[in-house]
Amino acid sequence: MLDQYSSRLLAQCVEAFSQLPGVGQRTALRYALHLLRRKKEDGQALAQSISQLVDDIKYCKVCHNISDTDICEICSDSQRNQSIICVVENIRGVMTIESTGIYHGLYHVLGGIISPIDGIGPDDVEIDSLVERVAQGGVSEVIFALNPTMEGDTTIFYISRKLAAFDIKMTTLARGVSVGDDLEYADEITLGRSIVNRVSLDAQNR
Amino acid sequence: MLDQYSSRLLAQCVEAFSQLPGVGQRTALRYALHLLRRKKEDGQALAQSISQLVDDIKYCKVCHNISDTDICEICSDSQRNQSIICVVENIRGVMTIESTGIYHGLYHVLGGIISPIDGIGPDDVEIDSLVERVAQGGVSEVIFALNPTMEGDTTIFYISRKLAAFDIKMTTLARGVSVGDDLEYADEITLGRSIVNRVSLDAQNR
Repeated sequence: MLDQYSSRLLAQCVEAFSQLPGVGQRTALRYALHLLRRKKEDGQALAQSISQLVDDIKYCKVCHNISDTDICEICSDSQRNQSIICVVENIRGVMTIESTGIYHGLYHVLGGIISPIDGIGPDDVEIDSLVERVAQGGVSEVIFALNPTMEGDTTIFYISRKLAAFDIKMTTLARGVSVGDDLEYADEITLGRSIVNRVSLDAQNR
Repeated sequence: MLDQYSSRLLAQCVEAFSQLPGVGQRTALRYALHLLRRKKEDGQALAQSISQLVDDIKYCKVCHNISDTDICEICSDSQRNQSIICVVENIRGVMTIESTGIYHGLYHVLGGIISPIDGIGPDDVEIDSLVERVAQGGVSEVIFALNPTMEGDTTIFYISRKLAAFDIKMTTLARGVSVGDDLEYADEITLGRSIVNRVSLDAQNR
């Protein structure tokens, strides 16, 4: 390896870059050589931002979303509807739903979903803290925004049983054909469910 | 931006990653989230290797290849043929030729090629230091391994005039059809030149 790069420092950097997902030796080398061509400050800025990210990032004590503070800015935003909690698998779920601009309630990041095959049980994800939040009162609805997979459905079922004792509405994302999609290309299961769960034209235009 | 990532630290890191070539916001976010999922030490290792690379990398005082020391390990390797210098455009050229395992002489990294359109003149690339190396004696051959483009050919012509006074052999990479290629798909200019510069079967098997 040293032979190929004629520098231990370069070899090390290529090795570290190639640990990133989807980055091979070729791309890693391209990144490293790019940094060498640019100003030193650009490389140092990247190094510092990585270092700060992994060292200083916090997780919100309420919803477990990433945050720079103990309570994230979504949970501490009084403008948002505090009575609705949207349950997502990970922080990416928060970003995805925030990007729609449609939802104005709070979140709860599970940090995973129940998956016996992968050895992930109910205790490995943030279910107890969700039950606690609901138990404290003030919550009227819990929306499950998990991937429409076997594991997602299992997790929804488990949590819904835990929350059954509380007087709250529990909902899940509508499943059906995508907006702008061609019916011809929708898969049969999705299309079938969208027929069974068809909505009246009034409801759709709400 | 802060809104989307709900963390200034994450937003900063995504921004820094997206400065890398071919990396957009999506990929940058993927890299950052990957680092958050892994051990802190992995992220710190990446940060440190980048920081060290841009701060501590040296360029060989003889051939201008990157190096951890003042004289690179190729130049200081007494096993290599000190009488042949292979002229390349950049450090990537050194790596490419080293990867063939065929060449055992020294290198000279120009750090660019003459390109009037881009405002790069002879003084912007390491030509004087090459002439100096040849003037010091002990060099029997200079191989030009530059891209077969107009700029490459211009650079070769310029340097060859500068070196004309010395009693050395000057060569360039053979241009012809690629090994394993189908003649049908070779471009006409390359094929034409490979006919003009045809080699005797003896020479080819050397």
